[in-house]
Amino acid sequence: MERIISNQNARVKAWAKLSTKKGRQENHTYLLDGLHLVEEAIKAGAKFHAIMVTEKQMADYLPNVPHGVPAFEISEEVAKHIAGTTTPQGIFAEISLPEKTFDPSYVHDGAWLLLDKIQDPGNVGTLVRTADAAGFKGVVLGSGTADAFAPKVVRAMQGSQFHLEVLNGDLDEWVDALTANNLPVYGSQLNEEAKSYRDVEPSTQFGLIVGNEGQGMSNELAAKTTANLYIPIQGQAESLNVAIAGGILMFSLTLGN
Amino acid sequence: MERIISNQNARVKAWAKLSTKKGRQENHTYLLDGLHLVEEAIKAGAKFHAIMVTEKQMADYLPNVPHGVPAFEISEEVAKHIAGTTTPQGIFAEISLPEKTFDPSYVHDGAWLLLDKIQDPGNVGTLVRTADAAGFKGVVLGSGTADAFAPKVVRAMQGSQFHLEVLNGDLDEWVDALTANNLPVYGSQLNEEAKSYRDVEPSTQFGLIVGNEGQGMSNELAAKTTANLYIPIQGQAESLNVAIAGGILMFSLTLGN
Repeated sequence: MERIISNQNARVKAWAKLSTKKGRQENHTYLLDGLHLVEEAIKAGAKFHAIMVTEKQMADYLPNVPHGVPAFEISEEVAKHIAGTTTPQGIFAEISLPEKTFDPSYVHDGAWLLLDKIQDPGNVGTLVRTADAAGFKGVVLGSGTADAFAPKVVRAMQGSQFHLEVLNGDLDEWVDALTANNLPVYGSQLNEEAKSYRDVEPSTQFGLIVGNEGQGMSNELAAKTTANLYIPIQGQAESLNVAIAGGILMFSLTLGN
Repeated sequence: MERIISNQNARVKAWAKLSTKKGRQENHTYLLDGLHLVEEAIKAGAKFHAIMVTEKQMADYLPNVPHGVPAFEISEEVAKHIAGTTTPQGIFAEISLPEKTFDPSYVHDGAWLLLDKIQDPGNVGTLVRTADAAGFKGVVLGSGTADAFAPKVVRAMQGSQFHLEVLNGDLDEWVDALTANNLPVYGSQLNEEAKSYRDVEPSTQFGLIVGNEGQGMSNELAAKTTANLYIPIQGQAESLNVAIAGGILMFSLTLGN
């Protein structure tokens, strides 16, 4: 097995570039950091391009590597460099980005979460993980939303990208298509005159839009939803974190409120 | 007004030290970063020790400073240094830590959130903000939980520390005291045999414990709760982020489920 100890190595440079959107789009791959994610990817049959393991982790992890995947031993220094963190576990994989086109006009069932300009990577990842836990069929990232395969998003998703659809899409098109296919589409607003989320009949077939941390969802989208929902604030906080609001709405809309 | 441009200035060194727990405990103060927090502190009548503003923000912000508070003009470089971030707004305040002792045996009403070894500062801050929004009376941070006045916690709380009690406490004592005072105490567990959170009668008088990101709440605490609650997972995610789980529980227990 090739042993790589220099951050100047061409492979290391290529892996480090996967932390940028440009790097991921040029290579059509992204990086998984940590045993849990690598195991989830193996279970999901993801397409592996490489597995990288530090000497310390070698004995434990290497037996599970799928046959035929190029494996590399990397130094601790290289591990920190490609992780962009100071305490990586010491196991990584480079896998293919999902490459599918997805036409919302064929969507006739399931619960779908639409993200309108959610900027914080942790929020995006946590929303995907929560949508998975709430039994959603997919999450659609509109323009202006953090890239689904950025390192901080991948960390927060905790492997949920292997359990449900995680797609880029035009939210305008999605709202129109879901509505045309008789799925209600709910917006979310910090507006006491909007409908209380507790007054919606629970269901497993709908779209739910959550919007930007500071601005909320766009007025254009809000104007074409079936209803816009409000979470009543009891205390003096001005608002909820968008991932918290999304979590409360997703569980209430699917399980009942 | 004194103008400070060097990170070697004694005041700047002292402000920078407030990013550590040791620094905060020695000074009995902590730092607010950004206009929103400073305004919340003014509104709440917090005890100010200093206000620091960059030249760029001076004209807008300075008129609101409470009379008698020492005000300093700081350079952009100093602002970045004390913020520990690259893009601070350019307005800070040093205010007193809350200095109160709080005996849980006097607590006879309200909803109280108990944090058992929550390590991530963003989770702690978001949980406090969400407890505020759900109308909770206070949040008790047990040992092993991130410090409430660490910069990342303060950022995520978004001023909620001025709206409800944020206390350090011995969770064992709190559970005993709340129980003795006839408030039910709910734990939370990733255990399908626990009680579904949807089967709890909504109320405004109870304790709710959420536990460590990886380990959950301690067995000792779980053994003495009124009931331990479970959020049913519909998809393939293994768990929910603790702040999301806390948000779902807090809103469901207070508003109804």
